[in-house]
Amino acid sequence: MCAKELHRISAVEALKLIRDGDLTIEAYASALLDRIKKRDSVVKAWAYLDPDSVITQAKALDKVPLPERGPLHGIPVGVKDVYLTKDMPTAYNSEIYRGQPTVTADAAAVITLRAAGALIFGKTTTTEFASTVVGGPSTNPHDPTRTPGGSSSGSGAAVGDYQVPIALGTQTVGSTIRPGSFNGIYAFKPTWGAISREGFAQYSMTCDTVGLYARSVEDLDLLASVFKLADDEVVSTQPLDLKGAKVAFCKTHVWPEAGPGTRNAFSKAQELLASRGANVCELDLPSEFAAISRWHEIILAGEGRSSFLGNYSLAKDKLHSSIQAHVENAQRFTKKQLLESYDGCARLRPLWDEIASKYDVVITPSVVDEAPVGIERTGSAVFNGMWTILHAPCLNLPGFAGENGLPVGLTLVGGRYHDLGVLRAGKTLGEIFERDGGFVSKIP
Amino acid sequence: MCAKELHRISAVEALKLIRDGDLTIEAYASALLDRIKKRDSVVKAWAYLDPDSVITQAKALDKVPLPERGPLHGIPVGVKDVYLTKDMPTAYNSEIYRGQPTVTADAAAVITLRAAGALIFGKTTTTEFASTVVGGPSTNPHDPTRTPGGSSSGSGAAVGDYQVPIALGTQTVGSTIRPGSFNGIYAFKPTWGAISREGFAQYSMTCDTVGLYARSVEDLDLLASVFKLADDEVVSTQPLDLKGAKVAFCKTHVWPEAGPGTRNAFSKAQELLASRGANVCELDLPSEFAAISRWHEIILAGEGRSSFLGNYSLAKDKLHSSIQAHVENAQRFTKKQLLESYDGCARLRPLWDEIASKYDVVITPSVVDEAPVGIERTGSAVFNGMWTILHAPCLNLPGFAGENGLPVGLTLVGGRYHDLGVLRAGKTLGEIFERDGGFVSKIP
Repeated sequence: MCAKELHRISAVEALKLIRDGDLTIEAYASALLDRIKKRDSVVKAWAYLDPDSVITQAKALDKVPLPERGPLHGIPVGVKDVYLTKDMPTAYNSEIYRGQPTVTADAAAVITLRAAGALIFGKTTTTEFASTVVGGPSTNPHDPTRTPGGSSSGSGAAVGDYQVPIALGTQTVGSTIRPGSFNGIYAFKPTWGAISREGFAQYSMTCDTVGLYARSVEDLDLLASVFKLADDEVVSTQPLDLKGAKVAFCKTHVWPEAGPGTRNAFSKAQELLASRGANVCELDLPSEFAAISRWHEIILAGEGRSSFLGNYSLAKDKLHSSIQAHVENAQRFTKKQLLESYDGCARLRPLWDEIASKYDVVITPSVVDEAPVGIERTGSAVFNGMWTILHAPCLNLPGFAGENGLPVGLTLVGGRYHDLGVLRAGKTLGEIFERDGGFVSKIP
Repeated sequence: MCAKELHRISAVEALKLIRDGDLTIEAYASALLDRIKKRDSVVKAWAYLDPDSVITQAKALDKVPLPERGPLHGIPVGVKDVYLTKDMPTAYNSEIYRGQPTVTADAAAVITLRAAGALIFGKTTTTEFASTVVGGPSTNPHDPTRTPGGSSSGSGAAVGDYQVPIALGTQTVGSTIRPGSFNGIYAFKPTWGAISREGFAQYSMTCDTVGLYARSVEDLDLLASVFKLADDEVVSTQPLDLKGAKVAFCKTHVWPEAGPGTRNAFSKAQELLASRGANVCELDLPSEFAAISRWHEIILAGEGRSSFLGNYSLAKDKLHSSIQAHVENAQRFTKKQLLESYDGCARLRPLWDEIASKYDVVITPSVVDEAPVGIERTGSAVFNGMWTILHAPCLNLPGFAGENGLPVGLTLVGGRYHDLGVLRAGKTLGEIFERDGGFVSKIP
């Protein structure tokens, strides 16, 4: 394999090359740094990146004897700048924290990644405390006039642009899945609580979830194994047999918001799967699920109220008005409304699990459409919030194209703690969608 | 007021003296340091305390002009050593973190306290990651052969021993209320989520709650105001009128475990309130509430599994066997059991709220009995877990005595987000219990 292609390989491919002695971690890291050097003035995915320290880390990892290496040894990982990292500053895209000294602690997920041998590459851009829809400076690698989505903007863009094979995001509404779709990559939000959220910025205890980015399901499988995700059922390593498989397409109550890109992806996916013998059907959720959008809004406001009080007490004026509004309870939500929202969502979670258990696969939109023009706003998460608050595992599968040729994905969603089942089905479907979905990358 | 009594005053009293120019913060801090010097070889409440830095902070606070002072200006607060503090090391009573450099960040609750002017005094002892029942080295200030309880051992002991007026704890099972009872002080666990849990060690997302210690309800009111706790109903500042007030005594399904101290406190409290005209009754919870103990165990195991994975990956051998057991899922709990536990607890939360709404006050045991002999174990939390996982506000009221003259408290518990209502009732009842409950402190 020639050096100039190194940035395009997957983590699994890189691990094999490294293990076989065909690639040093230093050379791999250098290739990625070269890629970033070439592209960073356009994509601007990084909030913090120190090439010298990357190379120093890589050299140290190269010296570790093979038998002492973990399952991610030498794999570069971009980390959304809301996770604490002991060797890099964490600024949350907040005026309060910009320029502050590095906090000498790792978030739990970062500890786990490092212990597995990962090379923590740098910090990727985020919206302020992963809580606003204000984008920039990052751009979509497929078209720099468009947003890469948010709030995991830099993680989505960096993986999409072949700058790192893997990155960490977070999701409270649609902050992992939306950038996954916009950047044309795999994005996985596991079941709530399956990966520790200790050490990343708190917005909503009920919704905040670790998100994972990669360009293949094999790479996500690797992460799932490092984070010890486990379903009750033994999940086959064989591809899903689509013949007769029950595949439900769930438009949800917000389907009227879907644009042509998502509508096309939906019917194309139905066609592709039906033509392979799948038993394709439409899934209409019971009407009570429509209440979730409002409940989600109330829970974010209620939990944001206490989550942001500290920084509000410290420096109110440096916080975005939407964060101030949470603390000030600008919408005058009552605790009664908050509790009804908690209890309503809690009531629907087992209902959703039961519905999901009736199908081999459930597919739902990831986004309204391809990434919109403009980097000031990160786009709509209207299709994501319901699954986040249901704590359901979600996997964005790329492969489709919008009217302007930008990537559009679909979400594979499962019942709670069917993380590995979702990944397994995602591998089979993702390969089909990537091959026949119609998206053609023009990333240089 | 003579200097030697300064350590016994409440935060509210200290604030008045400071505001009136009758006390400098430096003098107040010095008095507490003197108290600690005298008692620390016995009580051992502190994991970290730097007297010089306390005095430096105090002097700086003394220089702040009156109009710029916050509502806690100059008030010393002990912080359980599982909260990040930017100027003191955080060791979690863990071999992994002992001796590590100070993490230059404050937990959200600490940010809020500092912004209100609090003097962050030092770090108080905890069990390992606030998750085990292994006690020591702290002792009970009422009897050094006994445990101060846990996991907020040092915070409970320090406030009980007049070393600081206020301290932060945490509660995942009974880690705030139990030490409150054992040390004879007020201990408040607000509704889950009412105070941000960002920046303290994660064990269980569903249960972890900030806990507050003080020696009076007025001081807790002050903290409630700083943390912007708010009920929907306007809560009167007048004492609760006990004439005809509906006061329920809830023994719970674990009542058979109650020892003579708690049984005495229960009947004594019934007597005291009935004699003041309260309409006292017994509250039997529906039998389904008995399932919570088991659900709680399963949720702690399931959430501990992911919460501790990072540190387990880092240094498994340095973790207590009970923490290792969580990560290894030693009890072989299934995800199905975890989800049934989540959904079961979620179903009972609104039921509990409805039951609570029928009474002016609900009283339940805080502990099995007075603090047991021995500091190796922190005592039973069997009476606390249910309320923690129901997310209900709980307030330990001191005032009763066990067979050996040690303090025994009772818990006032409310429906979710009736935090201020619980504090208000607690003030009225606490004054009665403290005066007539029978406990006489022998703390020197």
